[in-house]
Amino acid sequence: MTSNPTWVLSRFPVGMPVPDDFTLEDRPTPVAKPGELLVRTLWLSVDPYMRARLSPAKNYAVGQQIGEMMMGGGVGEVITSDSPQFKPGDIVQADDFGWQPLTTVSAKTAVRLDPEAAPVQTSLGCLGMPGLSAYFSLLHVGRPKAGETVLISAASGALGQVAGQIARIKGFDAVAIAGSDAKLDWCRSIGYRAGINHRMAGDLTEAIAAACPSGVDVFLDNTAGPLHDAALLNLNTFGRIVVVGTVARADKFDQPDIGPRFLRRILVTRARIEGFLLDDFEAQYTEARRELTTWYRQGLLEAREDVAEGIEAAPHAFIRMLKGENFGKQLVRL
Amino acid sequence: MTSNPTWVLSRFPVGMPVPDDFTLEDRPTPVAKPGELLVRTLWLSVDPYMRARLSPAKNYAVGQQIGEMMMGGGVGEVITSDSPQFKPGDIVQADDFGWQPLTTVSAKTAVRLDPEAAPVQTSLGCLGMPGLSAYFSLLHVGRPKAGETVLISAASGALGQVAGQIARIKGFDAVAIAGSDAKLDWCRSIGYRAGINHRMAGDLTEAIAAACPSGVDVFLDNTAGPLHDAALLNLNTFGRIVVVGTVARADKFDQPDIGPRFLRRILVTRARIEGFLLDDFEAQYTEARRELTTWYRQGLLEAREDVAEGIEAAPHAFIRMLKGENFGKQLVRL
Repeated sequence: MTSNPTWVLSRFPVGMPVPDDFTLEDRPTPVAKPGELLVRTLWLSVDPYMRARLSPAKNYAVGQQIGEMMMGGGVGEVITSDSPQFKPGDIVQADDFGWQPLTTVSAKTAVRLDPEAAPVQTSLGCLGMPGLSAYFSLLHVGRPKAGETVLISAASGALGQVAGQIARIKGFDAVAIAGSDAKLDWCRSIGYRAGINHRMAGDLTEAIAAACPSGVDVFLDNTAGPLHDAALLNLNTFGRIVVVGTVARADKFDQPDIGPRFLRRILVTRARIEGFLLDDFEAQYTEARRELTTWYRQGLLEAREDVAEGIEAAPHAFIRMLKGENFGKQLVRL
Repeated sequence: MTSNPTWVLSRFPVGMPVPDDFTLEDRPTPVAKPGELLVRTLWLSVDPYMRARLSPAKNYAVGQQIGEMMMGGGVGEVITSDSPQFKPGDIVQADDFGWQPLTTVSAKTAVRLDPEAAPVQTSLGCLGMPGLSAYFSLLHVGRPKAGETVLISAASGALGQVAGQIARIKGFDAVAIAGSDAKLDWCRSIGYRAGINHRMAGDLTEAIAAACPSGVDVFLDNTAGPLHDAALLNLNTFGRIVVVGTVARADKFDQPDIGPRFLRRILVTRARIEGFLLDDFEAQYTEARRELTTWYRQGLLEAREDVAEGIEAAPHAFIRMLKGENFGKQLVRL
């Protein structure tokens, strides 16, 4: 242990990240610059998008450089503030937490949380980035109609679990794809009608056909890879695939992904395949967060978390999330 | 020669169709049933969509059975009519012409043409199915904004030539992909800014990048295959690919088409890839045909035709169109 143990990227991962890609360094307590808050980290979030940042390749998220502190979303308690909007003791969520117990975040983008409204870590899950991503990718890009079948991969994950429950609330027919029968049992308990264990299903195209007897109207693709093809082959006329994540490629990030081009099927079904990034919906965050919070407080939205303990666990939590070994939203509690 | 020489499908083509897949049979002059017109064929149309009908596989168009007369779009002169809407001597366009000099078409779907308004065979090209397909795929699915770059494959073909000219009329930056320098020269003469000869370009991704220095905003994909990938790799943020045709697969119709899955690029650019079938826009045909006809009569829309002569030439014309050996809208004149 050190006074402020800080995770640093020691090299760019090749394939699936391994613990040695990260180094725990002793760093001093950071000094807040003007406009920054010094915070005590309570929760860190590990999310699939972070894999793409650990690469010299161009990406939508700013890349993480070697030797730099690992960064990500978090929740913490304000220790010092030069902003009139925050005072010591406030609990804040921000996306620029360092992986360290004492860290600084920008006051401009930090959000003060009301601990009475919901457990503060839900701001990293169902009421935060994954929840908003589920909301907008499903309702604003996939745009299912009542009764339509919505297929969701990584269905018990941070995003998928919210998408499945929104689908239930809105009257869509939700079908889960996940990597274990335990996950699928839980998926059914939160409102998915059926589930497919992609590690055990054999022929994925047939498994989806069996689970979706009316075909697939919207596929929320959190994984990419062969699951994408199998869903496309079950897509109904005017079906939609929302490309939300590519976590199945976490271990093959820099390799070309080869598969069939189903352009004729896209033509014949008039399928729409569309990429999704949450940032595009920023103007509507407040409204969406209000609706998600209402559902949460009414007990309509269950939040399953997978919690790793202590700053030491952060890389391990990140890696197990990329491997799909987590069960629910992966968090690190300090 | 026979009295009413009629082309019949003798077997399902394997790969690229060959002349022996078709047989010219002597058939009697057909007898019009109630609701049918007996017509003398003046023009037959051969179009890429017909390849998919010559297969036992399920398709959006009704399949052609072995031993059956070949069917397609045509223009003819009415000989007999039991419909008050048509009289002998009328010139009609219909999509259910047989490949024979004397044939019957349904009065219900036939359209009477005004030979004074435009040459009657334009009803099979720029003012007909290919022209309408260009109009709706570009303007209603691709939806370019003024100044955006529109990349069009099979750019001098029946559909592409209209799309390129609509792009010019509407103030888009149109770039052609075609299979010969002569075609590209003509494409420039009708308003494409630049062109790529896909048979000579070497690395297609680099060739598109060079021809589209501001990237590609809309790709009208008439071909599928590796061109699709090369265009996708040049697609701008919020770019769109409209999957209109798959003629590059005419010779590999029943084989899986393998290529890279660029799902991460689709995600990062929020690309939209969408299939197109003309039938979906039927309610708006009249309006679109009126606009196309206005442009044609104002001299804004040039129609280049590639005319094969005589009923005997029909399979040959069909095959050369599939191979991209035609230069302009491929027709057969009887």
